[in-house]
Amino acid sequence: MEADVTEGFDIAAQPWGARAKARCDLLGLPPYSEVEGQLTRRFLTPAHAAALDALTRWMAEAGMSVRRDAAANLIGRYEGETPDAKALIIGSHIDSVRNGGRYDGPLGIMLGIDVVEALHRAGRRLPFAIEVVAFGDEEGSRFPASMSCSRAIAGTLDAMALEMKDAEGVSVAEALTAFGGDPDDIASAARDPRDVLAFLEAHIEQGPVLEAEGLALGVVTAIAAQKRLMVKIIGTAGHAGTTPMNLRKDPGPAAAECILALERICRAGTDGLVGTVGRMTALPGAFNVIPGAIEFSMDIRAETSAARDEAVITISAEIHAIAAKRGLRAEVHLMQALAESPCDPSLMGLLEEALADLSHPARRLPSGAGHDAMVMADLCPVAMLFIRCEGGVSHNPAEAVTEADCALAAQAMLHFIDKLERRERA
Amino acid sequence: MEADVTEGFDIAAQPWGARAKARCDLLGLPPYSEVEGQLTRRFLTPAHAAALDALTRWMAEAGMSVRRDAAANLIGRYEGETPDAKALIIGSHIDSVRNGGRYDGPLGIMLGIDVVEALHRAGRRLPFAIEVVAFGDEEGSRFPASMSCSRAIAGTLDAMALEMKDAEGVSVAEALTAFGGDPDDIASAARDPRDVLAFLEAHIEQGPVLEAEGLALGVVTAIAAQKRLMVKIIGTAGHAGTTPMNLRKDPGPAAAECILALERICRAGTDGLVGTVGRMTALPGAFNVIPGAIEFSMDIRAETSAARDEAVITISAEIHAIAAKRGLRAEVHLMQALAESPCDPSLMGLLEEALADLSHPARRLPSGAGHDAMVMADLCPVAMLFIRCEGGVSHNPAEAVTEADCALAAQAMLHFIDKLERRERA
Repeated sequence: MEADVTEGFDIAAQPWGARAKARCDLLGLPPYSEVEGQLTRRFLTPAHAAALDALTRWMAEAGMSVRRDAAANLIGRYEGETPDAKALIIGSHIDSVRNGGRYDGPLGIMLGIDVVEALHRAGRRLPFAIEVVAFGDEEGSRFPASMSCSRAIAGTLDAMALEMKDAEGVSVAEALTAFGGDPDDIASAARDPRDVLAFLEAHIEQGPVLEAEGLALGVVTAIAAQKRLMVKIIGTAGHAGTTPMNLRKDPGPAAAECILALERICRAGTDGLVGTVGRMTALPGAFNVIPGAIEFSMDIRAETSAARDEAVITISAEIHAIAAKRGLRAEVHLMQALAESPCDPSLMGLLEEALADLSHPARRLPSGAGHDAMVMADLCPVAMLFIRCEGGVSHNPAEAVTEADCALAAQAMLHFIDKLERRERA
Repeated sequence: MEADVTEGFDIAAQPWGARAKARCDLLGLPPYSEVEGQLTRRFLTPAHAAALDALTRWMAEAGMSVRRDAAANLIGRYEGETPDAKALIIGSHIDSVRNGGRYDGPLGIMLGIDVVEALHRAGRRLPFAIEVVAFGDEEGSRFPASMSCSRAIAGTLDAMALEMKDAEGVSVAEALTAFGGDPDDIASAARDPRDVLAFLEAHIEQGPVLEAEGLALGVVTAIAAQKRLMVKIIGTAGHAGTTPMNLRKDPGPAAAECILALERICRAGTDGLVGTVGRMTALPGAFNVIPGAIEFSMDIRAETSAARDEAVITISAEIHAIAAKRGLRAEVHLMQALAESPCDPSLMGLLEEALADLSHPARRLPSGAGHDAMVMADLCPVAMLFIRCEGGVSHNPAEAVTEADCALAAQAMLHFIDKLERRERA
């Protein structure tokens, strides 16, 4: 146990819910961060190891037996009525982006610990075990791969992922070995689907919807389908002073029309359709040169691949039409496509019943961001509970949640477990 | 004289006009370029010196007495009827951009030499002298200053310009001394306005207007007034997946509306109004992040400062309105303002009469690009003759002119001199 975890701060005395938030805050600085004055906790760093040490103690205090698997996942198990009971896995990731927030990931782990501790104090045993997992690598902030830990558990980790190197040339396999993991035995981390009942991930929303609607919690319907595209509008570069307006083949205004078309199409869309132009470059990019080409990115997401693809087809057709109307050429390149990962309808129903017990509306919303839950969906049915965060801000030191919302989330998770118990006994 | 200037090529045997083009071509490679296989001839380099050596010989052959002034201008003088006659100065610049074209600048010098040679062969003396000048530094491709040579002649050179340093840390003053110039006596390069009748610069158009209209030549009305502005539209950065369309403060579509507004305003404008967005940057510039801000440049030019400023005021108001409508903030910063430099109406009339003699329409057009003529306008009345160039391409090895257009330009310049002679004798 690290000295500063409890120094001047009696976690056990904190009210339930407030404690989960406080634990995230405690892990927000060195030794749990690599950098003084901010939170940067990347996969397989000493900060990661320090955080797992703290979690190990907290899990043990909550009545769990704790182990690390070959992929550096930390797993606390609270046994069910029988030792071979299937497990409800509750978890999220312990790593962060560089200079990130304290709740993106860790809050879902801390809430799992709180929930188990409540069962443990009450002496309750369930027809299923509960395991709390701290995945080590959701953000991909150290190696050019992400979610390798949940992939290892789901049994979908590509062996190539272990050869990925960080900026210093250290491979995942080397770092994992130094960390006490075992890249050669990575397959042992994979769980047998017959041993797993479900996966539940609580996570801050990382968006503004719940806050805008005055709601603490939301039930995630699916992790959105996504396509990343690069668009290039090709015109003719020219002198900004000597080329009259009517003789220009300027791709800039054409790109502007495309950006407005994307906004219009996505605003009119349903199924959580969103479209974003995050990058924009004029080539060659000089004050006094009419650009020869404009490149911009498009990130298009929706609850279903069908809704996403309909939008991609519509905007691509508009881009080509806009370019053609102006005598320009357009190229639309698909860079990445990710299918949607739907949450389990039956588990969503149980989460909604749990919220109803707390007199909280059953707000369903998609997750536009990726989560370990989408990987775990390959292993078992998954459910996700979103927690309101201030201003929708995430991946930023300003990330914030309230103690009250955390307490309500813990209660909802416990009610969800009650519902699941009833279903399993039935 | 450099050996390769005449090797295998009898310049004197070339037809008039074709010769001016051929001379530009001869100076397009080392030793007249700093770089093998391309034309890069920057101020005060050995390539500049080599070009002045060739020009010195050609000027002398055309009947001129040749000198260099303290600012490294090469000046050939063809005396008038009296030794103290005022001078019609004909000239342009001998320097180039990096990997530039062969005609941008040199063609105006070569045509001046051809015109004087014609007078010299005919044994004609005029009531004014003709001086052909090769300015050394129009492009500013070596030092962070441009047109210092014409400024020295016009008497408007700021002493600070001599302290500017190139990328190797060599100052203009040091390079000028090594070149045989005299930075301490730079004031001696300034001409007395009473000794100068007018300045005539022939230059490729560097734009597509003459070609589009099937014309070889054009009479420049003014060097356009210009303003450079930077615009910043400030919104709120957000996660591309988790922020619904209706909760975004995305500056991207706002910037798109601004770009289209600029295009619309300039298309509807008169007085040669043009507006260009040459740079465009989304911040932070990630695929999956709604930009927090968009920055873009605006280059706005017109024949008059009034027309330019009216456009700047209109577009600035629209930018603020577009931002306000979307709940965003806009900043418009003026980076640079250059007043227009009108050509002399009386000289324009003479040039038009000269074109009429050649049955060429009197097409008037502004110059969107800057030229030494705008500096010389501080010294004396100026006129500019534009010569059609292929595709409007310039600052590029693909820059091209036809021999026929060059011949017509030389004839027009000679007719202009006839008109000027008649006016001076009257």
